[in-house]
Amino acid sequence: MNGAESLVRTLLAHGIDTCFANPGTSEMHFVAALDQVPGMHCVLGLFEGVVTGAADGYARMAGKPAATLLHCGPGLANGLANLHNARRAEVPMVNIVGDQATYHRPLDAPLTADTEGWARPVSCWTRTGSRAETVGADAAAAIQAAMTAPGGISTLILPSDVSWDDGGVVAPVLAVPAAPQVAPSALDEAAAALRSGEPTVLLVAGRALRADALAIAHRIVAATGARLMCPTSNGRIERGRGRHPVERVPYAIDQAVAALQDVRHLILVGAQAPVGFFAYPGKPGRMQPEDAAVHVLARPEQDLVDALERLADRLGAPPAPPAPVLPAPELPRGGRINPDSVAQVVAALMPENAVVVDESITFGRAFYNTAMASPPHDWLQLTGGAIGAGLPLATGAAIGAPGRRVVTLQADGSALYTVQALWTQAREKLDVTTVILSNRKYAILLHELANVGANPGRTALDMLDLGNPSIDWTHIATGFGVEAAQADTLERFADLLASANRRPGPFLIELMI
Amino acid sequence: MNGAESLVRTLLAHGIDTCFANPGTSEMHFVAALDQVPGMHCVLGLFEGVVTGAADGYARMAGKPAATLLHCGPGLANGLANLHNARRAEVPMVNIVGDQATYHRPLDAPLTADTEGWARPVSCWTRTGSRAETVGADAAAAIQAAMTAPGGISTLILPSDVSWDDGGVVAPVLAVPAAPQVAPSALDEAAAALRSGEPTVLLVAGRALRADALAIAHRIVAATGARLMCPTSNGRIERGRGRHPVERVPYAIDQAVAALQDVRHLILVGAQAPVGFFAYPGKPGRMQPEDAAVHVLARPEQDLVDALERLADRLGAPPAPPAPVLPAPELPRGGRINPDSVAQVVAALMPENAVVVDESITFGRAFYNTAMASPPHDWLQLTGGAIGAGLPLATGAAIGAPGRRVVTLQADGSALYTVQALWTQAREKLDVTTVILSNRKYAILLHELANVGANPGRTALDMLDLGNPSIDWTHIATGFGVEAAQADTLERFADLLASANRRPGPFLIELMI
Repeated sequence: MNGAESLVRTLLAHGIDTCFANPGTSEMHFVAALDQVPGMHCVLGLFEGVVTGAADGYARMAGKPAATLLHCGPGLANGLANLHNARRAEVPMVNIVGDQATYHRPLDAPLTADTEGWARPVSCWTRTGSRAETVGADAAAAIQAAMTAPGGISTLILPSDVSWDDGGVVAPVLAVPAAPQVAPSALDEAAAALRSGEPTVLLVAGRALRADALAIAHRIVAATGARLMCPTSNGRIERGRGRHPVERVPYAIDQAVAALQDVRHLILVGAQAPVGFFAYPGKPGRMQPEDAAVHVLARPEQDLVDALERLADRLGAPPAPPAPVLPAPELPRGGRINPDSVAQVVAALMPENAVVVDESITFGRAFYNTAMASPPHDWLQLTGGAIGAGLPLATGAAIGAPGRRVVTLQADGSALYTVQALWTQAREKLDVTTVILSNRKYAILLHELANVGANPGRTALDMLDLGNPSIDWTHIATGFGVEAAQADTLERFADLLASANRRPGPFLIELMI
Repeated sequence: MNGAESLVRTLLAHGIDTCFANPGTSEMHFVAALDQVPGMHCVLGLFEGVVTGAADGYARMAGKPAATLLHCGPGLANGLANLHNARRAEVPMVNIVGDQATYHRPLDAPLTADTEGWARPVSCWTRTGSRAETVGADAAAAIQAAMTAPGGISTLILPSDVSWDDGGVVAPVLAVPAAPQVAPSALDEAAAALRSGEPTVLLVAGRALRADALAIAHRIVAATGARLMCPTSNGRIERGRGRHPVERVPYAIDQAVAALQDVRHLILVGAQAPVGFFAYPGKPGRMQPEDAAVHVLARPEQDLVDALERLADRLGAPPAPPAPVLPAPELPRGGRINPDSVAQVVAALMPENAVVVDESITFGRAFYNTAMASPPHDWLQLTGGAIGAGLPLATGAAIGAPGRRVVTLQADGSALYTVQALWTQAREKLDVTTVILSNRKYAILLHELANVGANPGRTALDMLDLGNPSIDWTHIATGFGVEAAQADTLERFADLLASANRRPGPFLIELMI
């Protein structure tokens, strides 16, 4: 058995059965092994940002890592932006990066690059395989590291001779350590804050944003009068009608500061204390008041659900009150296209058990609140701010959650970074509805430029404007094999969205906003 | 004057008047400064790989650096693959990467990443600006480093407060040191090898591939019987009818070894001794015989033209014989589409003074030799093996060489990595003809998989096949604002190519091969 085969068999033995791939020459023995060993679902991406973003979306929904297959340092580099996002989402992922043969690397062939150096900032575990005999064990260690709470990215660099040499050994499965419990002192401190009667925010993140954990969190806030919030951007929130809601810290800095201005205690459950996405002259970097006390109930790598449950018990909190009964969103008839009316259409037409991928940026800030009354669904966001996550996330989420409709709410400028994902959606016949919010500009930047106080001239506008020529999304989607149509009225949008959500396979709607 | 303005003015003072940009929030003060200070041509790319690849193409043709404007670590990361290629092409480039404010960075906001760490492997100079007062001087040092022979990539990371703070100082222009001359001992050694009568290859690269230098190299080989060659991949070769030709070391390892098998002396002029692009089991890594002597006439950072001239004089070589007179390529009439017939069409229809961008990979290996008889032109190649350079290179080359037609010979799979470049070509109305060689597969990888000895099954074929669904390039180009048409006969291809090369602005031909 060569090293490549031992690696494939080790991945499969650990339950990793999906590989998002953009292979190159140095990975041919690994490709051959994927071919010869049954059991791996290989999904081709035409660009590495698609591959890594899809592996992120897959992991968010499947709850386990996918493998990626990337080609040398530059191939990894093309995937780094979405690895950055995946790292912020705390998802497990195992990158296999093919590279030069160990003995060929010193010759500095053209594709030779600092693969390890590029991998390390996004990886919790990085290693370059050295021998066929040990690459199976390397893979087992990579998987263990990726799956250790809260989840992280492992990058195993695979020199081609490690792949093709004989002597591969399938590694025994390494157990994943359970997420540790929080210490009693953390529970004491949080309980004291909650009992203080002072304004307190319980800020939950990560695993604590699933429905079971949010119900427990509602026990705590109902019993104490605290306020339940979550970070601005999150990997996955289980929500919708019948589920307990959670309020997000606003993105806009002034709104975030206002939302937290009275807070005396901030209790963190797998979250970091909120900070501005960027600094602005004369504005604070941290969102809570300077003199608010910050209490860490649970660090991201601890058992968040157990911590919430023990805290609720310690407070003697009764069972959670039922989730608020919200009227089903109604489809607006008539009216103009604006953020609220589009949000209402999306909320009213949300399929049962949908997965929403939200990279809507400026136009879509009403989507989240409006859709709370939709049927139960998952909400997946851009977590690291590196735009171009949406289409790949949706691609991977559809594979990680088969049978569920994925609805992507996607800003046009951001979509263009990884537009090649549409082809993978077509090839895999994924049930994804993509709504391109087509304003033909970088709206967020025009807003930020105005904040700077500049009166923009031609040069600045040209750098923030996506017209001239206008991008035609129906042509682009068709070119990649995805059916598409344009909507320039609210009625037409609603008709297209309703039919797209019912049909099998992908469909793209360019909504002119 | 704020830091941003001092930076823009310093760039302009050093002659940098073109900026390829994909800005974000943290760069708004820099964008405002670009807007307020006249003189910078700002070119928007929809993806950072377009930006960095275009800056590479620009520098190859303009002979001076462009600036790039990128957004934080992930924005830089998206540009790394084409920075890798640019580094291998030894082009000068000055990256400006906006980033978190100095005091905001410790808060680890979502977009915070290891920007320096990602930049360093591709940069000859990396610095994070610390104060508005010194960022002008930082820029001057960056430009000096980039322009020092043979040319390199400087990356200046610009925290937003360094940009917006007052106190900026326009830096005085720093002189670029002249490329040093080679030592007499290097001339002696090379001359002795050339006089030995033993089979000798003069391997020239970089600046030595311009017409003036190649003419001098031909003095040397005509006088000594040595063979003139250049590396497989090169940033820019001046060639065509009436110019002195240079033979490339073949890409395929067996052919390369065969081409060099009798060599006893290899004289390097700005080149590295050739190595295999990848290692293959049982095949050598270096292309020349193990016992061949390698002589370094000139290192890449030395004055290559001067070295050739002094070597020719030392050998007492007479003026170069005239370049061989080649019959003008004839347009084939009829015949099937294959690598040779397509190469003939391309060569026959080559516009006067064209710039050819060659990322044709497997199908296009005949293009280079066939086009030697075309009117004078420049040949630009993928230098670092990170596919996805072609469309951006063409975009930048058109801006760096106004008035000249750019002809891009582009493999389909590779084109998809940075397809967004088409939009910049449309927006800037660039005279670029793109020929997509549409075989709807990763042909090179199917070949490599066969080399592995594998009999590919469904999984492997699915990872190397770009059909299912087929990509429709005319739709994609139209979506990005570039007119396009498909050719499935040689006649139709010739008709489209002739008319595309005559019309202003970009045009894309999908050639079904």
